[in-house]
Amino acid sequence: MTEVEGKSCIAIVGGGLKRTVNKKKKLLLQVGALAACFLAKRGHQIVIYEYRSDIRMEKSRGQSINLALSFRGREALKAIGLENILVKCHGTCMRGRMLHDKDGNLKEVLYDSVKGNCIYSVNRQYLNVVLLDAAEKYPQVQLNFNRKLVEADLEKGKMKFLNTHTGATEDAKVDLIIGADGAHSTVRKIMARRPLFNCAQTYIEHGYVELSVPCKEYNEFAMSGNNLHVWPRGEFMMTSLPNENHTFTGNLFAPFRVFEKLKTREALLSFYTEHFSDLLRLIGEEKLVEQFFEKEPQTLISIKCKPYHVGKTAVIVGDAAHAMVPFYAQGMNTGFEDILVLDELMERYDSNFAKILPKFSELRCDNGHAICDLAMYNYIEMRDLVTKKSFLFRKFVDKLLFTLVPNFWIPLYFAVQFTRMSFRECIAHKEWQDKVLRMSIFYLAFLSFAVFSCSFFLK
Amino acid sequence: MTEVEGKSCIAIVGGGLKRTVNKKKKLLLQVGALAACFLAKRGHQIVIYEYRSDIRMEKSRGQSINLALSFRGREALKAIGLENILVKCHGTCMRGRMLHDKDGNLKEVLYDSVKGNCIYSVNRQYLNVVLLDAAEKYPQVQLNFNRKLVEADLEKGKMKFLNTHTGATEDAKVDLIIGADGAHSTVRKIMARRPLFNCAQTYIEHGYVELSVPCKEYNEFAMSGNNLHVWPRGEFMMTSLPNENHTFTGNLFAPFRVFEKLKTREALLSFYTEHFSDLLRLIGEEKLVEQFFEKEPQTLISIKCKPYHVGKTAVIVGDAAHAMVPFYAQGMNTGFEDILVLDELMERYDSNFAKILPKFSELRCDNGHAICDLAMYNYIEMRDLVTKKSFLFRKFVDKLLFTLVPNFWIPLYFAVQFTRMSFRECIAHKEWQDKVLRMSIFYLAFLSFAVFSCSFFLK
Repeated sequence: MTEVEGKSCIAIVGGGLKRTVNKKKKLLLQVGALAACFLAKRGHQIVIYEYRSDIRMEKSRGQSINLALSFRGREALKAIGLENILVKCHGTCMRGRMLHDKDGNLKEVLYDSVKGNCIYSVNRQYLNVVLLDAAEKYPQVQLNFNRKLVEADLEKGKMKFLNTHTGATEDAKVDLIIGADGAHSTVRKIMARRPLFNCAQTYIEHGYVELSVPCKEYNEFAMSGNNLHVWPRGEFMMTSLPNENHTFTGNLFAPFRVFEKLKTREALLSFYTEHFSDLLRLIGEEKLVEQFFEKEPQTLISIKCKPYHVGKTAVIVGDAAHAMVPFYAQGMNTGFEDILVLDELMERYDSNFAKILPKFSELRCDNGHAICDLAMYNYIEMRDLVTKKSFLFRKFVDKLLFTLVPNFWIPLYFAVQFTRMSFRECIAHKEWQDKVLRMSIFYLAFLSFAVFSCSFFLK
Repeated sequence: MTEVEGKSCIAIVGGGLKRTVNKKKKLLLQVGALAACFLAKRGHQIVIYEYRSDIRMEKSRGQSINLALSFRGREALKAIGLENILVKCHGTCMRGRMLHDKDGNLKEVLYDSVKGNCIYSVNRQYLNVVLLDAAEKYPQVQLNFNRKLVEADLEKGKMKFLNTHTGATEDAKVDLIIGADGAHSTVRKIMARRPLFNCAQTYIEHGYVELSVPCKEYNEFAMSGNNLHVWPRGEFMMTSLPNENHTFTGNLFAPFRVFEKLKTREALLSFYTEHFSDLLRLIGEEKLVEQFFEKEPQTLISIKCKPYHVGKTAVIVGDAAHAMVPFYAQGMNTGFEDILVLDELMERYDSNFAKILPKFSELRCDNGHAICDLAMYNYIEMRDLVTKKSFLFRKFVDKLLFTLVPNFWIPLYFAVQFTRMSFRECIAHKEWQDKVLRMSIFYLAFLSFAVFSCSFFLK
């Protein structure tokens, strides 16, 4: 690759793949491809090293697994001119959660009942293709598929790849290595050998099984197509997200010991009859049994680490830096925001990596930890709290105050999904609101008591 | 290795080495060698694979770095008949902390002022040699040095080693793999690729530099030889442990930003003159400067993971499972207790690894996490709390109640150092005691107020 004066050569390492529940492979390159677009726009030379073969060349495009895009992700896509095609043309708007109780009664809880924002369900495959096409349009971007990172000297920008097609090893040297290689990132594992690199991988004791919900006759949605459907059952739940082709992608999230009890056709059908009877009718018994037993329940991992960079030569982004459980639908959004932040720092520090990378860690690490925690919390909210009166009352109070003083009282969910407020700040905001509400309840109680006492003595 | 009916072939993987501050290497095999003794005693065939060459063959035996042995470690040594030689003949008894203030005034705080227990400082090199000799005496134990674990299939008990002498790779297959390969354990890293294996590595933002304190003329200790000396200075501290040869091994523990300021001879001497003037006199200016600048400050790592085993074929013990910061002097003691617990389970389940290993994880993981937390806490106690009146008052109350009701009121430090109470229980005990004391203070205050009020009205 020819060097351009004042411009750097940057390698983006893609993790490439994750075995999905149906043994097909998900491409995880989206954050890497987005980074390539941003950096190429600044004139840098980009080489993408992707473990997988080119997804666009494959006959089978795998299962249609959807991703949820909200404000942070959209802002990143907007900056490279892809928001319209991905969100407005091919995204399916979800305006809120549709809660299903055991009897099949529905209750809609809007994501944003004040300003009407919604979250978009986007086809993962399509998103990847669009991003890869966009990256490839830049002449400075070189795409290398079937390259597995074997070893790296992160301080010197040196890497060794295995060409999985030819079996040969290839060496590369660049000015900056960007590890966008997913939750099981090789770049992060190499970083973890360095002193003072903190890292934690946590699997929750719950797993998931993916189930497709077919469309009705005449290609219609079987349920409301503008909602994320949730069947909250306390300890476990089902969710399903609408697809562009009017099917739904559903997931059963539950403790592994619940899955342990669902080993036979009878046990499974009786479980679904008891807890998700409306959904069972939509999927059909045969289809449910077939899909459910096709594979083992998958695990859910959360990754926190610090820092995200090594000197001025290596940085990790996206799931490689902060894989999270999927319950806040912020995995890709946070990854995309990483690239937006990186680009903002490129602008501020004129592509001086020695200044950019430490600042990136400073800005993003604590936020990465915060969104990992929020995602864990949201699982409890989705599977349990949403059915509680206290939760619905809090939603009501939030809505009221957000309507009255929208710049002052920003509800947590809104801040996370529909603003770029740092995740740390989102949590701090919520804590401060909780305090205000607790105090208000206390004073209200005190006032009621005072009024009651006065009226009693004045009788 | 010939198989014996009903007995298993067990591989013990030793981590072998850690670069110490003076570029010499510490042997980390002690837990592995201890395990070999216990398991060989039960008739199993043992193969030790040690990264390092045989420490006993080396001319230079490295610096005399000492380890602290207390009850848990001693119980393990007693079970294989090594307590007497290691502790009673070659251990240096430390009966308490000797606190040095800035003016050189001394204050002794006994570890156990009620029953008189003490902790023993033991030479690491000597301990290793004794343990290796003991292991080698069993005909079932085979020692392989210079073997670096490269890869393993933990479920099948298969391993691939690099012979660092010949450069050849060697394969091995056993019934059980015991990873005793230290904080940077390869066995643990292979475990970490498996789903549902949780793991966190945390470096604290403090480092340390090791400094030797020479003995006086006529080979006498320069300070009291029966104490662990501490110079608590709030944010940082010096400690020093007595050696059998009447020198002390000292350590400066401090935040890295403090070390950043100690880059010149002048800065260092002025720092020592201000904070550790008595120690500076003992070490001497030239010797201090020479030792201090010989190497960079070392990092301090803490490892928590769960589970400790894979099926019935692999388990990690010691630092590989629960490396901790050194402030409770429980690193080796906990590792030795691991082996004691493993042996107790071998007895209970008649060497049935399918039952033993899950039980080992169940018993040890939470305790491993607990002692890691306690070790972190003890740093604050040693460098800061020991100088506070409230801390000394609490020590006094603990002593009083421990004397009066020794089976009921067991102080935290005593429980950790001088019993085999599980570390979780030690913490629960302390929390319960704190609660009792808080309530007592509240009632005492109330009672005082009531008595005062009564006496006032009765006047």
